[in-house]
Parts: sequence; C-alpha cells; structure tokens
Amino acid sequence: MIKKIVFGLLLLASLGSTAQENLNFNAKKEITSPEINTDKSVTFRLMAPNATKVEVQGDIIGAAGMATMKKQADGVWTYTTGPLKSELYSYSFLVDGLKTVDANNVYQIRDVASVVNVVIIGGGKADNYLVADVPHGTVSKRWYNSPGNAKTRRITIYTPPGYEENKEKYPVLYLLHGMGGDEEAWGALGRTAQILDNLIAQGKAKKMIVVMPNGNVAQQAAPGEDIKGLYKPTMQLPNTMDGKMEETFTDIIKFVENNYRVNANKSQRAIAGLSMGGFHSLHTSRFYPKTFDYVGLFSPAIMPFAKTSSPVYENFDTTLKKQFDNGLKLYWIGIGKTDFLYKAVADYRKTLDGIGAKYTYVESEGGHTWSNWRDYLVLFAPQLFQ
Amino acid sequence: MIKKIVFGLLLLASLGSTAQENLNFNAKKEITSPEINTDKSVTFRLMAPNATKVEVQGDIIGAAGMATMKKQADGVWTYTTGPLKSELYSYSFLVDGLKTVDANNVYQIRDVASVVNVVIIGGGKADNYLVADVPHGTVSKRWYNSPGNAKTRRITIYTPPGYEENKEKYPVLYLLHGMGGDEEAWGALGRTAQILDNLIAQGKAKKMIVVMPNGNVAQQAAPGEDIKGLYKPTMQLPNTMDGKMEETFTDIIKFVENNYRVNANKSQRAIAGLSMGGFHSLHTSRFYPKTFDYVGLFSPAIMPFAKTSSPVYENFDTTLKKQFDNGLKLYWIGIGKTDFLYKAVADYRKTLDGIGAKYTYVESEGGHTWSNWRDYLVLFAPQLFQ
Repeated sequence: MIKKIVFGLLLLASLGSTAQENLNFNAKKEITSPEINTDKSVTFRLMAPNATKVEVQGDIIGAAGMATMKKQADGVWTYTTGPLKSELYSYSFLVDGLKTVDANNVYQIRDVASVVNVVIIGGGKADNYLVADVPHGTVSKRWYNSPGNAKTRRITIYTPPGYEENKEKYPVLYLLHGMGGDEEAWGALGRTAQILDNLIAQGKAKKMIVVMPNGNVAQQAAPGEDIKGLYKPTMQLPNTMDGKMEETFTDIIKFVENNYRVNANKSQRAIAGLSMGGFHSLHTSRFYPKTFDYVGLFSPAIMPFAKTSSPVYENFDTTLKKQFDNGLKLYWIGIGKTDFLYKAVADYRKTLDGIGAKYTYVESEGGHTWSNWRDYLVLFAPQLFQ
Repeated sequence: MIKKIVFGLLLLASLGSTAQENLNFNAKKEITSPEINTDKSVTFRLMAPNATKVEVQGDIIGAAGMATMKKQADGVWTYTTGPLKSELYSYSFLVDGLKTVDANNVYQIRDVASVVNVVIIGGGKADNYLVADVPHGTVSKRWYNSPGNAKTRRITIYTPPGYEENKEKYPVLYLLHGMGGDEEAWGALGRTAQILDNLIAQGKAKKMIVVMPNGNVAQQAAPGEDIKGLYKPTMQLPNTMDGKMEETFTDIIKFVENNYRVNANKSQRAIAGLSMGGFHSLHTSRFYPKTFDYVGLFSPAIMPFAKTSSPVYENFDTTLKKQFDNGLKLYWIGIGKTDFLYKAVADYRKTLDGIGAKYTYVESEGGHTWSNWRDYLVLFAPQLFQ
C-alpha cells in the first residue's frame, strides 16, 4: 500500500535533482541572465571564474556590436546596456575568444548554422513578437509531396485562430525565407505566429493561412528533420536560385489548396519573401502571372540570373509587364538604406517605372536584418485581402 | 532592366556572407563536429586556442561521463570515443570549466533549463529516432481552452500519416512529460514523431494520434510561447503533483475529441507518461476508471501524496481496485534497475499484486533517462489498440 503522507518539498527536490538527463540544477549559484531592468536596459551575467576576457556581442550592443564585460569578485562577469528600444535582439558571449551561448537563457534560436540567444524588449513594436492574451493560431509541421522535386518535403503552416472551429474559407500568404534558411526560419526569428496572432486580435490583419515552405529544393527539411539527419546548414546549396523553386511552386499551391479550406483564386493569394525569398517571390509571381494579387519583396535578392537555366527566367521584361497588365492589388517592396542590395533594388525600381508598373516602396533604416523583415511583415500583412 | 548574365558563384558568396544576422560563415577554418566515424566512434572538435583545458561530457562518454580533449597545434581540441552502440546521445563541452555547446552542431535540444547537443548513432535501435524514407505524420502546436485551469494552454498533437487525406477515426495516446518538462519534451528528446512514423511504417504500431500536453497546470506553455515570455524553466513548480493536472485532464480529452476524428471510447484511449507523467498517468487513469484501456507508467514517480489535497487522491486503494475490476487491456510498467524510483515502483507492484491486478512489468538496464523512456515508448506503442 502506498503511504499517504503529505507530499514534501524535500521529496520533490530529490526527484527534481535527478529526474532528467543533463540537468544543471545543482550549480552552486543561480544566475539570472539576461535581466531586463525597469529602464529597459539589459544586464548580462556569465559565471566564468577562469576566463581572462569575456565579451557580449550582437545587435543588442548597438553600433559597436560588441562590449567587454567586467569580472566581479565571485567570478561572474557582467555588462549592462543602456536603455533599449523595443525589439527582438540576439546576442552571444565570447569567452577568451570562444563564442558561446548564455546557458542561463534557454531561449536560443538557430539562424542557418548559428545558434544565438534571444531577448525581447517589449513596450513598443516588439510587443507584436510576444505571446499576448489573445486567441492563438495553430502551427503545424507537415509533409507534402513535391513531384517536381521527386521528394516529400516538410512545410510549416500557420492556421489562424478559429480555423478548426468553423467552416470558413481563408486566404493564403506564402511566406519565403532567405538563403541558408528553411521551413523553420519565419517561425523562429521571424515570430510569424505571434505577429499574426497579434495583428489579427487587434483587427489589423485579416485571418489568413500562412504557408512557410523550404525554399532549398535540394533539401527535404531542416537539420534533424531531413532524411540526411543532422546535417550542417550552409549558404552554398545547389538549385536555390536556378528556377527550380519557382518551377515547382505549383506543388506547394496544389498541396495547400487540396488540404486546407482556402479560397483558391488570385484575389486570395499573396506571396512574399525575404532576400532569396524575395527573389523567389518576384519570379514565382511573374512566372505564374495570374496567380497572386499580392506580392511582397522584403530586401529582395534582385540579382542577375542565368537566362537559359530555366524557363522561369525567359522573357523577363515581357512577362513582368504581363503580370502588371493582368492587374494586381499590391506589389510591395521594402529595403533598408544600408542594405547591400539597396542599389540592385533601386535598379529594379527603374525597370518597374519603365513599364509603368505601380508598386509600394518602403525605405527603412538599417540593413539586411531580421529586425527589418519582422517590420516588413507587420507593415505588409495588414494590407492583404482587404 | 535587369542584366541577364550567368549567375556567378562570386555573387552568391557575397550574398551569403551578409545575408542574415549573426552568421558565422567567415570563420577561418571549417570544423566538423561531431563526426561519426565508420566504426561508429565519434570525434568531437572544438576550436579554442586560448583554453587550457577542454572536456567533453554527456552520456556519450560512457560511465565516466566526462573525457579530456587534446589540443592540436592549430588550436583545435579533439576527442574520439570508442565504437558506440546505436543511441541518441547528448553532450556538451567544458572549456576551462565553462559549459558550452558545440557551435558546429546545430542540433541542440532543450531539456528543462539546459540546452545540450545531440548526436544519433544509427544502425540499431536509434534508427527509430531518425527520419526515414517513410510517410510522415503532422506535428501541430495548438492551443486549447482549459476551463478547469482558467486559461488557454498550448498542446502538441501528432496526427499519423494519412490523417488529413481520409475520413477514418483514430485511437489516441495521451503522452505525458516529466517534472520540469513541457509540451515540447516528448517531441524533442523523446523523438515521438520519428518513433511513431517508423513503427507505423514497419507495421508494428497502429496509426494513432499522440497528444502531448503541458503537465504543469501553472503554465500556459513552454518558454517563449507562454504569456510570461522568456521564463527560465524550473523543477519547483506549484500545482504539478497536487491533483490539478488529473482533475483538469477532462479539458484535454474534451478538446481532442471535439477537434479530431477519434474513436471516443475506452478501448481507443491510452495514457502514458515518464516520471511525473507516470504519476499523472497512474492517477488520471484511476480517477477516471472507465476511460483508458491502456496505461503506461515509464519510470513513474510513485510518490507519497497529500490525501486531502485533492479528490483525485481520495480512496486510493478502492479506486485502484475499481479501475482493474472495470477491466483494462494493458497496464504497463517500465523501470531501470538503477533508477532512484526503483524501490518505490517495487512497492507499488506489491500494492498491485495485493489486489490481484494484472500488469506487464519491464525492468531495463540504466536509470532515470530519456534513453529508457524512448525504449519504453518503442515497446509500449506496438501493444496499443491491437
């Protein structure tokens, strides 16, 4: 018979200390890092008594990008930033030159082949990135068949709050990642689910399905989810910008429209992407010129392409004109003033002006960053399907 | 007009080097770590020219749990294990005493408040943990309403391959995590989706829905997904083992049965859990004695409880007997020989024997580890709904 005695904290602690693998609960000292102070500055702490130099690096440090931490008598290194603007920041530590994450901050996000710590400062635009007390959509990782690539492939699908409880049909935003990214990218550093949940709850965006495919057709899926196993992501992948993604985009649309309650027409389809995903959005929407009424190019990789590599890139000028002649509701371009693609985008705008195409152009501060891409999503999504 | 020239690798490289935040692609030397050698040994490498001592720790090192790495002339520290049995191993580095992850291995999994690197050695039982060329189920993160806890809560749902393409009804396994875990635990170190995909493809397990809730009713969701934001997980949570989870389990069942095509009867419901989740499974299945035909206790936290804290714990002996008198198809208990809960489980078996209850008992090597819990899932799932 089981003894029915009062459940003691001592027992709880004993269970806790050995309950799972690789726990670190027996550390002598509990360290809080990062700590968001009342003035919106952030204090970092790292216990490293043997280190001779510890630095903190990342966009959270501002223009310098790196700051030296100070060692306290107890072996804990600290650094406090100035008051920070509302933003999702990333950072990591350099301990005697060795890059390491903040072990006291479990919130770590992989960006391509690099894992960084994240901290969100609310009280402004980054409130859109936080989980609020609002209805939440569902995020699913599914697999779809892509006959064009002769493989099944993983895809992330956001369905808005209420999708499962009613019979309505929804519009669809296809949202594409940049070079080196995959089907995890927009959900991780992009905070897509939180942004959509919040914009929808505020009445700013329509309820929509957001489809986030893997734009590297040589891959099935993100590391650990691909049949290749735990591969290391790289920027140098074959078939990323040679027309294959655009050619096989119909596999994705077909899957979505056969598997979700959607309005399968042009006025209810949007496509947008960052960097390489902007390149994919530009060419996909042009190659299928009666498919998308909304196009978003976020810091798009406007780049030369091989004319003969794919039918996607043939007759660029005439097909681009045709896309606009067919009529579309929004062709949105966003770029940062210091983005290395700024001039390429300026040249592309001249091309658009030359054919009399109407588009919305937003020039922001900063460069080729997730900070801008989250901003662009927040600006773009409310303009869709209105 | 865009120049249509051959798409050059030079341009690709220039895009790559600055395309996203915090990349580390300009490191002088590309390091591969871990490397699985042909004899199934694993070589670890870490570039740390300024370090005086580097160790690798984790279950991958074997009994010692830690090994000292050797410094090469180029500043890279290395260590090679002996040939390893097929398993999912975890590890991390200690650099002059500072715990750090392997930055060259993007596959990192959070276990409660600790992030560890992972490596899977195939060619044996761990093949079940790898993504194989088989049909894949869908993993969804959803939110359900829990009136009993006065909050909406996040939940992970695995639906088997084909769920979306047909109209069949499926049985349901409710799969519960341990102390400090959350709705991410079974999908991460538990490899539930891969295990189910593989067992189903091999014809060993029936197609089933697997529901992985958050067993800490004081939480809405995992860190970063909760309205609390980026909190640090802890083992010492209120209301984890005081009856609240069991009392409000009907909110979960109601959500699942209203939102998925399931067979809503006893013969098509299973409940299982590890450690604290085993405690929850024991009490939930007993408190609702006509609800589950299959019960799995994986290294269950058989612990004293407060008789008066909740109606869940009242009349333990009579309700346990009632559960067995009602009839059930499988009551499965697994425990490792060196588990700190071994004796508590032995005592509980005496209780079961005392009331003439029939159960299946599996005693494995090892202790309170994810290695055992994955094994138990692989043993348990094929026995369900047959």
